[in-house]
Amino acid sequence: MSNETAETIGKVYLVGSGPGDPDLLTVKATRLLETADVVLHDKLPGPEILSLIPEHKREDVGKRAGGEWTPQEYTNNRLVTLALEGKTVVRLKGGDPFVFGRGGEEMEHLAANEIPFEVVPGITSAIAGPGVAGIPVTHRDHVSSVSFVTGHEDPTKDESAIDWQALADTGGTLVVLMGVGKLPLYTQALLDAGMSPETPVALVERATWPTMRTVTGTLSTIVSVRDEHEIEPPAITVIGDVAATRDRVLSFLENTSLPEDT
Amino acid sequence: MSNETAETIGKVYLVGSGPGDPDLLTVKATRLLETADVVLHDKLPGPEILSLIPEHKREDVGKRAGGEWTPQEYTNNRLVTLALEGKTVVRLKGGDPFVFGRGGEEMEHLAANEIPFEVVPGITSAIAGPGVAGIPVTHRDHVSSVSFVTGHEDPTKDESAIDWQALADTGGTLVVLMGVGKLPLYTQALLDAGMSPETPVALVERATWPTMRTVTGTLSTIVSVRDEHEIEPPAITVIGDVAATRDRVLSFLENTSLPEDT
Ligand SMILES: C[S@@+](CC[C@H](N)C(=O)[O-])C[C@H]1O[C@@H](n2cnc3c(N)ncnc32)[C@H](O)[C@@H]1O
Ligand SMILES: C[S@@+](CC[C@H](N)C(=O)[O-])C[C@H]1O[C@@H](n2cnc3c(N)ncnc32)[C@H](O)[C@@H]1O
Repeated sequence: MSNETAETIGKVYLVGSGPGDPDLLTVKATRLLETADVVLHDKLPGPEILSLIPEHKREDVGKRAGGEWTPQEYTNNRLVTLALEGKTVVRLKGGDPFVFGRGGEEMEHLAANEIPFEVVPGITSAIAGPGVAGIPVTHRDHVSSVSFVTGHEDPTKDESAIDWQALADTGGTLVVLMGVGKLPLYTQALLDAGMSPETPVALVERATWPTMRTVTGTLSTIVSVRDEHEIEPPAITVIGDVAATRDRVLSFLENTSLPEDT
Repeated sequence: MSNETAETIGKVYLVGSGPGDPDLLTVKATRLLETADVVLHDKLPGPEILSLIPEHKREDVGKRAGGEWTPQEYTNNRLVTLALEGKTVVRLKGGDPFVFGRGGEEMEHLAANEIPFEVVPGITSAIAGPGVAGIPVTHRDHVSSVSFVTGHEDPTKDESAIDWQALADTGGTLVVLMGVGKLPLYTQALLDAGMSPETPVALVERATWPTMRTVTGTLSTIVSVRDEHEIEPPAITVIGDVAATRDRVLSFLENTSLPEDT
């Protein structure tokens, strides 16, 4: 890159917003939201964080008018266009940009178009969601591994892309993202794979948002618990002995930024 | 709890420091480091973050004079003692408190002793380490899952709780923490489990510290790469196709808080 080009091209920051509580933004993300020229975002960062961004900087690439999802290609190209205009661009993603966030694709598109970029990790809902609900995803007494898996398979992929038998066989905690709708399918797959029906399961809905809720059950009861409480996305499913920790600690668990009952 | 007790007992915050860059502390962690009466920590948060904590507040529970590790029991009891003295206590853990950080044990000990506590998630090195090195732990084109596993168990020992065969069978990205020393053992276990010797592998050492280094290889070469570059803990091992992303994006990857060559 010549010096002349470097002086005119902007830069893209792939920034994780964390799960939704503005207090869980990183120092760096907070600063970048102030200094950026444009912030491209969808709805996942949540209402509290989005309200921190000055209106004139915000560009919602989550949904188009008319309710259709913006194709990933549009977002990719928009990032390049803005950078070529010399803008400092924040691409704000819920949680961490690289946990089922398509940040990898955006990064590769930027590099292919010779746009300088920086990665600013965020707190993933997959760990923080269970965490603030009193559930450690790992525990020395219970597990030596934790696996994060999508519960919402890419429909263009082969059905067997997720090996639930292998995941069950790890013996570790399983954390499912995008897993509210297909909960009946993968809990059954795990039962078929030999996991005990008594395995503790928790659903953490809108983790760290003011409207956060947590419900618990077992591999055999969690679908009816979900239905009874009408749990909706975004939510995290935690499967494993660690999910039972919550009940043992709940009386002394406080979260000053959350409502009393969470 | 009577009101009288509640007025005198302090509170413990289980706080994640993130991987080491002070810019990746959360807004909440930064505030708590300022307002806490005491900060119990070990070495993992790294020199930059530890230097932010006023000397008179710091209590190092990582090592005792003489080089011995502080037993977990000491830390557990110290947290209770300080809270009973009415102190606001931050227990600062590297990364996220619940990712192989024994935060679960501390939380349960606090609850068992009726000490109010709060969980403040941090950015885990397991995701951010690869991330700032240009490696997304998940990628739509490559993987539907990512598993985090501890590398300090000897896979040849019967008591090893880790099923490397199952982890290989998931087909997802594998991220190994505490995995520098036993790298030869678990890479062999994964080869024995049928993983391709050409599988890309990266080691990210002291991620986000000013002295960060990243090296890459394959499942069959990474041990000699580790030896050649004398990679030492703390480091993250990333195993899977995503580890090859780094080479495709590196020329345009900038990290303002890191040295030029990372
Ligand atoms: C496309 S994925 C993105 C995940 C995100 N990159 C992260 O690290 O949290 C969207 C899924 O993340 C989970 N999620 C994100 N934010 C959440 C929150 N505040 N509470 C519960 N689940 C959340 C849900 O499972 C949701 O379906
Ligand atoms: C006891 S575990 C604690 C992990 C921590 N709770 C986290 O979420 O990052 C210690 C291991 O974390 C990893 N680790 C922690 N900080 C790191 C860093 N800055 N760079 C690379 N690896 C790190 C290393 O694998 C190290 O052996």
